[in-house]
Amino acid sequence: MKKILVIHGPNLNLLGEREPGVYGTDTFESINDEIVAHALEIGMHCEVFQSNHEGEIIDELHLARKKFDGVVLNAGAYTHYSYAIRDAIAAIKIPVVEVHLSNIHARDEFREKSVIAPVCVGQISGFGKYSYLMAVDALNYKWSEQSE
Amino acid sequence: MKKILVIHGPNLNLLGEREPGVYGTDTFESINDEIVAHALEIGMHCEVFQSNHEGEIIDELHLARKKFDGVVLNAGAYTHYSYAIRDAIAAIKIPVVEVHLSNIHARDEFREKSVIAPVCVGQISGFGKYSYLMAVDALNYKWSEQSE
Amino acid sequence: MKKILVIHGPNLNLLGEREPGVYGTDTFESINDEIVAHALEIGMHCEVFQSNHEGEIIDELHLARKKFDGVVLNAGAYTHYSYAIRDAIAAIKIPVVEVHLSNIHARDEFREKSVIAPVCVGQISGFGKYSYLMAVDALNYKWSEQSE
Amino acid sequence: MKKILVIHGPNLNLLGEREPGVYGTDTFESINDEIVAHALEIGMHCEVFQSNHEGEIIDELHLARKKFDGVVLNAGAYTHYSYAIRDAIAAIKIPVVEVHLSNIHARDEFREKSVIAPVCVGQISGFGKYSYLMAVDALNYKWSEQSE
Amino acid sequence: MKKILVIHGPNLNLLGEREPGVYGTDTFESINDEIVAHALEIGMHCEVFQSNHEGEIIDELHLARKKFDGVVLNAGAYTHYSYAIRDAIAAIKIPVVEVHLSNIHARDEFREKSVIAPVCVGQISGFGKYSYLMAVDALNYKWSEQSE
Amino acid sequence: MKKILVIHGPNLNLLGEREPGVYGTDTFESINDEIVAHALEIGMHCEVFQSNHEGEIIDELHLARKKFDGVVLNAGAYTHYSYAIRDAIAAIKIPVVEVHLSNIHARDEFREKSVIAPVCVGQISGFGKYSYLMAVDALNYKWSEQSE
Amino acid sequence: MKKILVIHGPNLNLLGEREPGVYGTDTFESINDEIVAHALEIGMHCEVFQSNHEGEIIDELHLARKKFDGVVLNAGAYTHYSYAIRDAIAAIKIPVVEVHLSNIHARDEFREKSVIAPVCVGQISGFGKYSYLMAVDALNYKWSEQSE
Amino acid sequence: MKKILVIHGPNLNLLGEREPGVYGTDTFESINDEIVAHALEIGMHCEVFQSNHEGEIIDELHLARKKFDGVVLNAGAYTHYSYAIRDAIAAIKIPVVEVHLSNIHARDEFREKSVIAPVCVGQISGFGKYSYLMAVDALNYKWSEQSE
Amino acid sequence: MKKILVIHGPNLNLLGEREPGVYGTDTFESINDEIVAHALEIGMHCEVFQSNHEGEIIDELHLARKKFDGVVLNAGAYTHYSYAIRDAIAAIKIPVVEVHLSNIHARDEFREKSVIAPVCVGQISGFGKYSYLMAVDALNYKWSEQSE
Amino acid sequence: MKKILVIHGPNLNLLGEREPGVYGTDTFESINDEIVAHALEIGMHCEVFQSNHEGEIIDELHLARKKFDGVVLNAGAYTHYSYAIRDAIAAIKIPVVEVHLSNIHARDEFREKSVIAPVCVGQISGFGKYSYLMAVDALNYKWSEQSE
Amino acid sequence: MKKILVIHGPNLNLLGEREPGVYGTDTFESINDEIVAHALEIGMHCEVFQSNHEGEIIDELHLARKKFDGVVLNAGAYTHYSYAIRDAIAAIKIPVVEVHLSNIHARDEFREKSVIAPVCVGQISGFGKYSYLMAVDALNYKWSEQSE
Amino acid sequence: MKKILVIHGPNLNLLGEREPGVYGTDTFESINDEIVAHALEIGMHCEVFQSNHEGEIIDELHLARKKFDGVVLNAGAYTHYSYAIRDAIAAIKIPVVEVHLSNIHARDEFREKSVIAPVCVGQISGFGKYSYLMAVDALNYKWSEQSE
Repeated sequence: MKKILVIHGPNLNLLGEREPGVYGTDTFESINDEIVAHALEIGMHCEVFQSNHEGEIIDELHLARKKFDGVVLNAGAYTHYSYAIRDAIAAIKIPVVEVHLSNIHARDEFREKSVIAPVCVGQISGFGKYSYLMAVDALNYKWSEQSE
Repeated sequence: MKKILVIHGPNLNLLGEREPGVYGTDTFESINDEIVAHALEIGMHCEVFQSNHEGEIIDELHLARKKFDGVVLNAGAYTHYSYAIRDAIAAIKIPVVEVHLSNIHARDEFREKSVIAPVCVGQISGFGKYSYLMAVDALNYKWSEQSE
Repeated sequence: MKKILVIHGPNLNLLGEREPGVYGTDTFESINDEIVAHALEIGMHCEVFQSNHEGEIIDELHLARKKFDGVVLNAGAYTHYSYAIRDAIAAIKIPVVEVHLSNIHARDEFREKSVIAPVCVGQISGFGKYSYLMAVDALNYKWSEQSE
Repeated sequence: MKKILVIHGPNLNLLGEREPGVYGTDTFESINDEIVAHALEIGMHCEVFQSNHEGEIIDELHLARKKFDGVVLNAGAYTHYSYAIRDAIAAIKIPVVEVHLSNIHARDEFREKSVIAPVCVGQISGFGKYSYLMAVDALNYKWSEQSE
Repeated sequence: MKKILVIHGPNLNLLGEREPGVYGTDTFESINDEIVAHALEIGMHCEVFQSNHEGEIIDELHLARKKFDGVVLNAGAYTHYSYAIRDAIAAIKIPVVEVHLSNIHARDEFREKSVIAPVCVGQISGFGKYSYLMAVDALNYKWSEQSE
Repeated sequence: MKKILVIHGPNLNLLGEREPGVYGTDTFESINDEIVAHALEIGMHCEVFQSNHEGEIIDELHLARKKFDGVVLNAGAYTHYSYAIRDAIAAIKIPVVEVHLSNIHARDEFREKSVIAPVCVGQISGFGKYSYLMAVDALNYKWSEQSE
Repeated sequence: MKKILVIHGPNLNLLGEREPGVYGTDTFESINDEIVAHALEIGMHCEVFQSNHEGEIIDELHLARKKFDGVVLNAGAYTHYSYAIRDAIAAIKIPVVEVHLSNIHARDEFREKSVIAPVCVGQISGFGKYSYLMAVDALNYKWSEQSE
Repeated sequence: MKKILVIHGPNLNLLGEREPGVYGTDTFESINDEIVAHALEIGMHCEVFQSNHEGEIIDELHLARKKFDGVVLNAGAYTHYSYAIRDAIAAIKIPVVEVHLSNIHARDEFREKSVIAPVCVGQISGFGKYSYLMAVDALNYKWSEQSE
Repeated sequence: MKKILVIHGPNLNLLGEREPGVYGTDTFESINDEIVAHALEIGMHCEVFQSNHEGEIIDELHLARKKFDGVVLNAGAYTHYSYAIRDAIAAIKIPVVEVHLSNIHARDEFREKSVIAPVCVGQISGFGKYSYLMAVDALNYKWSEQSE
Repeated sequence: MKKILVIHGPNLNLLGEREPGVYGTDTFESINDEIVAHALEIGMHCEVFQSNHEGEIIDELHLARKKFDGVVLNAGAYTHYSYAIRDAIAAIKIPVVEVHLSNIHARDEFREKSVIAPVCVGQISGFGKYSYLMAVDALNYKWSEQSE
Repeated sequence: MKKILVIHGPNLNLLGEREPGVYGTDTFESINDEIVAHALEIGMHCEVFQSNHEGEIIDELHLARKKFDGVVLNAGAYTHYSYAIRDAIAAIKIPVVEVHLSNIHARDEFREKSVIAPVCVGQISGFGKYSYLMAVDALNYKWSEQSE
Repeated sequence: MKKILVIHGPNLNLLGEREPGVYGTDTFESINDEIVAHALEIGMHCEVFQSNHEGEIIDELHLARKKFDGVVLNAGAYTHYSYAIRDAIAAIKIPVVEVHLSNIHARDEFREKSVIAPVCVGQISGFGKYSYLMAVDALNYKWSEQSE
């Protein structure tokens, strides 16, 4: 059974409370439950990690290298300037899928650019909590294909 | 039963023949078959349209307004400069999901910017043919939620 | 009697249906009727052409060269990137007046720049359907002056 | 009877003498006479003001707020950098139509950008003295429509 | 007793009438009364000057050099392009505090840059009429410290 | 009694020791004492927090949401690139006042731009330790006005 | 016998009529005759295609892949923004030589950049109709060398 | 006898008092005396005008057109943004020589660009009061040559 | 005996495992051993610190001020955006030498710019582990010279 | 008999040895022999000059003015910054054809811009040694036409 | 008696022959004669040097340090990119006056920027051969003042 | 015994005399002696070359290819714009180490960018004469490693 790690970056712990017009009203906990359940349904073990600290996200990515087969990463605002997280993704061998709740290409100009995109498998942006479910599917598709 | 239209932009008719290192070896036809089958499986009717002509894509989007409930659009290179397609998407009321086979954020600099993103629901980029399947799912999620 | 051609670019066929907050609620047909009537009133014959295809607009400009004395052009989103339409205007000898329904200098940044402006007689922007009537007047003024 | 004010910015007092290749040979006085006559013909009272001083143009806009129903403004070179005039236009409630004798989009690069455009109703550029007459018409169209 | 001069730049005379959503509903006169009273309360004599003319503001700054101990300056839109006012501030020896009613860093992009900031003591931006009171305090703090 | 939190960002713990030419010679502790005393004097309870860690500042802002009525924030160099802190400020509902010891608009070019300014109430920059006292006043003015 | 296709982009059908100062006075037909004759003389079969439609040029490039050994392409103004034509050239395997009648590096700034250049064999610019003849030679040189 | 006008722009009236490190210690009056004397010595009548008002400088340039044969202009900070003064210079026919006390190309970046330079005869920058004397000589050289 | 501190920034703990094509195959531990040995050989005591956390690096720099005579810093990706680390270096008095394993001027464009360089003694880039040894030498040279 | 000069700029003397993947394996001498032979074949006398010195290339262009009828110039890397060579080309009256071995529009970004192009007849880029032969043909075509 | 050196940069040896519309019809020799005579007239010894070689100009500046009291430098096109000449000027102690025949601020955009200006005493631009005479005067003024 | 060449670019011959605040007071000769001695000490033969001429540096690099095993290059101001030197380094096979006396990343903005860095082994910047000694060490380290 494949194991995946979902990493939520800064401010995502406030989901459901923070700017519901932009990010929806589901709480952080209920979304995590849905993701874990969805993963299990298609035969994957999923764990969740959240931190507001850039360094902790890097540490966690390093750890994931040995313990997980893939990562779903919503790096929050770090997406737009953390070359250190970018380097961490490049340094570990397992696939990382980049997700965003809102469509980052349709908001403030500074959110348009993702500095981590060039080292991720792909990007899913704008589908609310479903962005995470789709990312789980993406890893599943990827591995199914390889095992054919 | 919801009806969706998949629109493929310029050069996508050559899929399977064109730069397989970037775009994979599945043929255009087999990918379309998979998309239609996947849609059907989750209860949606799906049709496919391809054109190398910017104007035909705009015409088709106009027509879709009356005949379909949603659109999955891979605008190919038009993604990066066709403000006319952008205006067409803004003008029709139905949701449009933007997809790309390759991770456009990890290639040439000019491919990083999508001028249609600000008027699309969201963007899926980098998962090969699965980008399309995930887009179909995204529309399904969206509608399921609304009907709850 | 002078003959003029009004060319509407992409998405303008949806007028009245598309984003009424920006473009008003008059239908495409009724606006064209008003333009033709206004032209007739001041002694000019006026025909109307619409296309979503960049190439067809160029073809039509080429044809206009022999059949009309002037052109009123709303190039829609092509205004902002079609150097091919610009070259077509420069290539034909008859005067072309650039019009826009909304004030393009007060919207998205990409709409601020008109690549066709340098080869047009002048630009009228922001007066809704009246932009077209004023463009017809502008051609009339121009010709009245010359015949003095 | 509607009352409108035409404001001419810096150097326009030299009209007829200054660079006739760009601005034509009609004198400043004769153009003003034509504008006033044209306004009268369609039932509007029109007054004219000229100043080379940025501050005086702002003062005049403030005064116009109480005494006129609309303004036709050719801000001359101030068009391209006077954020103070822009603020004055935004501060008064009456509609302001921006006009230019020459096509500012077809000359020096610095003339392409109008900092006042975002707070004006619309822009007319490139039709010589007729730009002013068309601006008078534009205000007339606007008010006719509202009174329907 | 220290003497300070408050200089209001262009369009600030319309305070209370102009865009109350941005600038509040207190009138120009009542705000000036509050500033003068606040200054008096902490032992300072305060006078007020307003002009829409860049040149008059420069003239006034020159005069202030001899007659006042400090200046509170809201240069309005001149803040963003008047290098001439900047030079005037640099030329006089007395301290100038830059104030803005609204938070200029949270509005249009062109309002983000202050060309006078590098020659002012400091900047206070976004606290409505209180920006002025705080500026008076700032000068007071500065002088109290020096006299310790 | 209103409760406010003062947050000092990176390197501010070195105040009094670090570059006294730029930041003055008062120690970090003495400045904090003055702020707390000043707040108390006008009837507010004030606490102080300092961290060099971007993540800890975000955590603290999250906590403040429930425990304080307002925040005075000197984000140090994070001011210029931490979109994550910006998102945290936007996510919490309480007002945040941005302060800087030195005039950031008069130093290195990179210090001119504040990425957190658009989500703060206002900015005070350049008055040394008095910037903090004035920020406390600003919150007081804001609340006094609302309670009128 | 090698077979080559000459593709003329938008507005080139007007050759001889359009801006003769820039493009010369030879007619479109006579130039095509010269190209075909020149090719024949050095043992190559040559056909000619012209379209003002971006999509048709892409379609034609796709067809050429199977029917011709090489392409001489003057993409007209599409040269400067058609990433879709660029992708079409990259997708087909046969060599494409880029030609321009006028020296695009010595005209308007927007004509300096060719977005198709990076996927073409080489570029010939500025020699009028001879640019085409030289392009035919270039393909000939290329194939002669390979057959040595 | 040729007649020339020296125009001093904003803040130059403070010469001798303002930043002597940059602008020297000669007073405004003594410099003007030297200029007038130098002009007389080589057979020219010279008058002097100073204003801090952009509009007055424009008015004066208009008047000079009829009364003087040439102008020596130090536009102060207006040099860097007054397109209105630029237009005034272009509108009058007499030669204008641009002068600066300090070397504007060796100071702040914003002083490097002169928007009036393209319509002046030439520029002299960096020689203190001698810049003016050299400008007088320049006009003299120019006229001597023409009269040869 | 001089004491120096080597600080390794984010992801450098993975040395030997991470992208060996770029960073070589020596492990993190063996490189540190070499550095410490090299320092000892030329008479210096050397300690090593690594963290993925921006805040911890700042804290460590603050501590170093009292405990070490110099610092060798490889800030990893923080090099390119951490103005907070820059401020920390500027705040402490001891010399900091900037090192990079790979030649940062020959990789991604964003790696070309070092925001910490202006406050470091010098930069050594591109010599693999030897960059560290050379940095130790550089501090030694510096101190030898001063003691002469 | 027309006389032409081929000028090779810096590093071209290493042809055949230097980066054969980019520049081919023909030696400098053999290429020059081919060019001279090709010229002779079509009735032109051709001489060759090479220098790594910008100044010598300028000197040679000056000399060519009197001794040759045309120049074929490969300015090597000077192409991208030598405004001095550009001025030399503009100063002499004879036609200069710009050539490049590799397609400069398909390599490093800095090689895309040619500062000499605006003063050359045309540019040939990307055909290896054949670029030179085609340049000789281009001069021949030019002169044949004029003599018709 | 003061000794000055006039240095002419690339292409200036062609004066009188090269683009007379821009640079005038006086020959290089006659201009030099005028400069030397003018210098002598005001009591200065003047020598002249010309080279098309950047390195020779640097060598000459180094030599001038010991042999001359001041330099008049027209660096031709090197003005716009030779940081090496800039460094040479900064390295020698004697004053260097920058001159240009044409008004470099009124021509091509690349000629607007002088990289040597920041290390020169001042700049004289646009007065033809008189620019040199005025530069000689400028040095004379400078030394007269010091000797007062 | 390995042989290395030290190349000094423009103005470095003035070392010790030129701007000692930036470059130190050791003379050019004494520094060269130290470099040669240091090289000898670790078993390498070292020669020195200096030129102010870009072309001579290129010639010397070409020669070095056959006669030396490595190069230490301080290209002076050419570092920032000489694409011709860059091409020369790329063309020769031996390793080139880039050195600078001062920290080029901490001075004028134009000195920040090295156009030769992408083709050098690495860069050492800011350690005065020791930069050269460290560069010699760097080559030694490199070769020692290879011979292990």
